[in-house]
Amino acid sequence: MRQRKEAPMNKFWSETVKRTKPYVPGEQLNDPNIIKLNTNENPYGPSPQVSEAIHSEMKRTLHLYPAPDADELCNEISRYYHVSKDTIFIGNGSDEILAFSFMAFFEPHNQICFPAITYSFYPVYAKLFNIPYDEIALNRDFTIPAEDFFGAEGGVVIANPNSPTGLYLDVAVIEDIVMNNPENVVIIDEAYIDFAPDSAVSLVTKYPNLLVVRTMSKSRSLAGLRVGFAIGDPGLIEGLKRIKDSFNSYTVDRLAIAGSSAAIRDEDYFQETIQKIINTRERLIPEMKKRGFHVLPSQANFIFVSHYKISAESLYQRLKQQGILVRHFDKPDIEHYLRITVGSDEQMKHFLEVLDNVILHIKESAVKN
Amino acid sequence: MRQRKEAPMNKFWSETVKRTKPYVPGEQLNDPNIIKLNTNENPYGPSPQVSEAIHSEMKRTLHLYPAPDADELCNEISRYYHVSKDTIFIGNGSDEILAFSFMAFFEPHNQICFPAITYSFYPVYAKLFNIPYDEIALNRDFTIPAEDFFGAEGGVVIANPNSPTGLYLDVAVIEDIVMNNPENVVIIDEAYIDFAPDSAVSLVTKYPNLLVVRTMSKSRSLAGLRVGFAIGDPGLIEGLKRIKDSFNSYTVDRLAIAGSSAAIRDEDYFQETIQKIINTRERLIPEMKKRGFHVLPSQANFIFVSHYKISAESLYQRLKQQGILVRHFDKPDIEHYLRITVGSDEQMKHFLEVLDNVILHIKESAVKN
Repeated sequence: MRQRKEAPMNKFWSETVKRTKPYVPGEQLNDPNIIKLNTNENPYGPSPQVSEAIHSEMKRTLHLYPAPDADELCNEISRYYHVSKDTIFIGNGSDEILAFSFMAFFEPHNQICFPAITYSFYPVYAKLFNIPYDEIALNRDFTIPAEDFFGAEGGVVIANPNSPTGLYLDVAVIEDIVMNNPENVVIIDEAYIDFAPDSAVSLVTKYPNLLVVRTMSKSRSLAGLRVGFAIGDPGLIEGLKRIKDSFNSYTVDRLAIAGSSAAIRDEDYFQETIQKIINTRERLIPEMKKRGFHVLPSQANFIFVSHYKISAESLYQRLKQQGILVRHFDKPDIEHYLRITVGSDEQMKHFLEVLDNVILHIKESAVKN
Repeated sequence: MRQRKEAPMNKFWSETVKRTKPYVPGEQLNDPNIIKLNTNENPYGPSPQVSEAIHSEMKRTLHLYPAPDADELCNEISRYYHVSKDTIFIGNGSDEILAFSFMAFFEPHNQICFPAITYSFYPVYAKLFNIPYDEIALNRDFTIPAEDFFGAEGGVVIANPNSPTGLYLDVAVIEDIVMNNPENVVIIDEAYIDFAPDSAVSLVTKYPNLLVVRTMSKSRSLAGLRVGFAIGDPGLIEGLKRIKDSFNSYTVDRLAIAGSSAAIRDEDYFQETIQKIINTRERLIPEMKKRGFHVLPSQANFIFVSHYKISAESLYQRLKQQGILVRHFDKPDIEHYLRITVGSDEQMKHFLEVLDNVILHIKESAVKN
């Protein structure tokens, strides 16, 4: 895994820099022969309409600043989700929106909470903005104990489906958490929701304290374009806009606005590719079980698996040697697991072949030693 | 001017949101018939190589995350400026880099300073991050009194050339300010430096406390693509990277990386368009003087002017009615001035014709009343 070398402290660094513990993203190797199953990208390219839209935008106005509030995309999201424009915030990827949200809704003197096993950027934001946090232990089956999030001190962040587990919380349970935090903002990070049954967006008009954060990187296949959005009460959205307009007026560029708007317009392509990935996931899970893996019931575009005999670390290393990248988190409680992105059928067929060889090889070595 | 309506406070807003005073960018009107001379965009499109590079990047990998450190662009900047890669930081526009810099190098208990008349985003960042600041008065001719920036308490920010004045400080004077702040970071915001004689980048290897911030939005004609960069001591750059990697792993998208890299490679186009704009500026200045304007000696791609008889506010309004947008800052000391972007020769010819009519009309009205 990519490790950031400890830099010597520099006398010009602020206290803020000193307390950071930067997020380490999954490896991005430029070798096109590598099969990347480590950062939950979409194996299918974006809709062909995306490149058409980008091409036509590019010809006109690259020398002019974009619309600061990304109006075109805002209009498409408003139409698609049947929500008014003042409930929508656009950002340079959902990570930027999460960062702005920590600034906008959480305080250095109020402890927030999120699951102990979840997207590992949440504690990174908390350290950056000096916000105390409580990591709520998951149940033994990795499900989220909803009641433990009731009546939080300073706010709640939950990824649904959760990562890296892939487990999904029913919207009714999300609603319980939101209802039981009337004085706090509850952020539901729905990066993977398009692969799951249902979104919490329907609750937004009912609860002034709910912010739903989405990304175009996964289901819309635009990780390379950096676009995310949030839907919430106009009061929350205004708070996010005040932070953004104090930080960077134009966070989303013209090509990203044009491309992501086109992606939302092409509903057929979206539904078709989502369904393909779900079908591949459902075929992959029994194949993994056959090979001796415990597989969590994923509702995302990845699976979280643990082999009953072979260590995750050695599987990760051997797969990498064979040109397949999966994600291994070197962290207690999940060190025995691998997170594997659901690619195309062809990629998963190749993956299973390589996996079979790797398992065979490891077993043979074990017999020899 | 665009005014943000005062939103009622929301009970979920953090103290950070409450103290913000968001930046108000120049108007972005979508009417293609309007001549925009209000946000210092480049009238010439970017190099044709930019769209070729974007086109080829788009066909390959929009579904994959970009390189977190924008390596391709970093390589081009390293080659172009003859600096090592560990002295370069890439951001989603120079505004994002400035925001990160305020977080990385300034503290809530140390007063920073910047000129009283300068880029109005600096006090916005300071309010966002709760950093006290001293606005140093300019000399009567709008020049920057360099000695007043010696021995600052917590840091210095200077735009060179300054905006909205267009006045340029010699690199030797910048060096004096940097030398006389050995315990502070000095940020030189060189958004407009390519239209001026000389950059402070040459000082970076000598001073560990100097950060030079640049944008691709002006001279490289890529305002719509959102790319900026900073050059400074590796210790400062590492500080910026720690902030960025605690905020958003992938701030610059694949198309922006590909396009801006191509822009740097096309040196001929760059030199040609820069020279055209400088030539237009030098022709524009005497034309404005002929029409009764006081014109500051600009070294940027805009001029800062004041009419000896007619108020800036009414000129701004009348020009807007005629389809020409210029920038008027409703702020003491500069309320009598307009900032006018240097467009193409054709745009400036049209601008001067409209201006003549506007002046004539105002004078006639004055006679009638």
